[in-house]
Amino acid sequence: MMPPEEFTAALRAVGDGRYHHLHPFNLRMNRGELSPEAIRLWVANRFYYQKNIPIKDAAILSRCPERSVRRIWIHRLLDHDGHTGEEGGIEAWVRLGKACGLDPGRLWRDDDLRPGARFAVDAYVTFARTQPWPVAIASSLTEMFAPDIMTERLAAFAKYYTWVPDWGFDYFQRRITQARVDSGEALQITLDWCNTAELQQQAIAALRFKCDVLWSLLDALVP
Amino acid sequence: MMPPEEFTAALRAVGDGRYHHLHPFNLRMNRGELSPEAIRLWVANRFYYQKNIPIKDAAILSRCPERSVRRIWIHRLLDHDGHTGEEGGIEAWVRLGKACGLDPGRLWRDDDLRPGARFAVDAYVTFARTQPWPVAIASSLTEMFAPDIMTERLAAFAKYYTWVPDWGFDYFQRRITQARVDSGEALQITLDWCNTAELQQQAIAALRFKCDVLWSLLDALVP
Repeated sequence: MMPPEEFTAALRAVGDGRYHHLHPFNLRMNRGELSPEAIRLWVANRFYYQKNIPIKDAAILSRCPERSVRRIWIHRLLDHDGHTGEEGGIEAWVRLGKACGLDPGRLWRDDDLRPGARFAVDAYVTFARTQPWPVAIASSLTEMFAPDIMTERLAAFAKYYTWVPDWGFDYFQRRITQARVDSGEALQITLDWCNTAELQQQAIAALRFKCDVLWSLLDALVP
Repeated sequence: MMPPEEFTAALRAVGDGRYHHLHPFNLRMNRGELSPEAIRLWVANRFYYQKNIPIKDAAILSRCPERSVRRIWIHRLLDHDGHTGEEGGIEAWVRLGKACGLDPGRLWRDDDLRPGARFAVDAYVTFARTQPWPVAIASSLTEMFAPDIMTERLAAFAKYYTWVPDWGFDYFQRRITQARVDSGEALQITLDWCNTAELQQQAIAALRFKCDVLWSLLDALVP
């Protein structure tokens, strides 16, 4: 079994090599090379991911007998679904869609959803429903790499996609802060509960799998 | 398909005939006939139910694609698991256990859990994991009958089981109020979403099933 620093480094290394910041579609987005149609396609397909995140997190809760972990994890559902006085991340993404010219009805009905994006997201939900809960939690650790990609994306939108009004960017902004908190929690739970050599390897594999989910979602957008 | 009043009446009729207020063990409890050992056995076995309720409710959340319903349902997890400034229902039941002389460690380890109680509770969790979510929500409607049984139980404990200090009774007290709110929400969701003749029949069957879960839990305590 690896000591915590080595295990953490092994997890971070997965993202360095496989996170979707390296995907050609993301690179083109950040260079300002995407057409409005391509941006809208990305927003619409990523919405299917967004709307399934609370389903995935509830699946983790429903398999976790540790009350202390559930008490930490539950704020993800509140953050994303929203609650009194807080619209939530899904609604923030709908607003990004509106800013890009996408009708919310199109998003909710999956009108523009590509098959590969659906399969990737559904595979992620199934993973959370079927894997040991500490391993499912480890799969969330792509959040460790999210603040950087969000910061780059925000800059790219401000610079290149000036046809998108900046009232659409709340989702990116909120995730820069939230992802730091969330990934800190998820990393601590992973270190605490993936506490055998086998579980550590499963956690690393889970994070590779999750990187593949995000990667495949972008593959599905290639014309 | 039944109109709402007839459907509601059909649901209420299930409880009148099958809810565990009629179970011999409950009748003996309310007549003050149980020994301290029998009370402790009941508290310990019912704890297995209590600690699985958030798992069951998270399973419902994880199968429910309706954000508006998830936003309502999630407070059950917060209420039962607790959160900052609120210990939660599970902890209130642990305190009832302490008041009855049961060590919290015994409760959490299932030391006194009878097989029939485990099977009944596990069947309830499996039901929530596998049934359509509106039907799983309908199975929660035993809450409609909970305020009365809690009120009777509180009176019986105060009158007959004076060896149990009344700082143990918070769970009963909080559930009298909570169950009214919770069952109102669950009934409205059931009326709104069990919106075909077939789903209405499944909802009624789900409530019968849930009554059987509670009944079987008490059967398991018979010496």
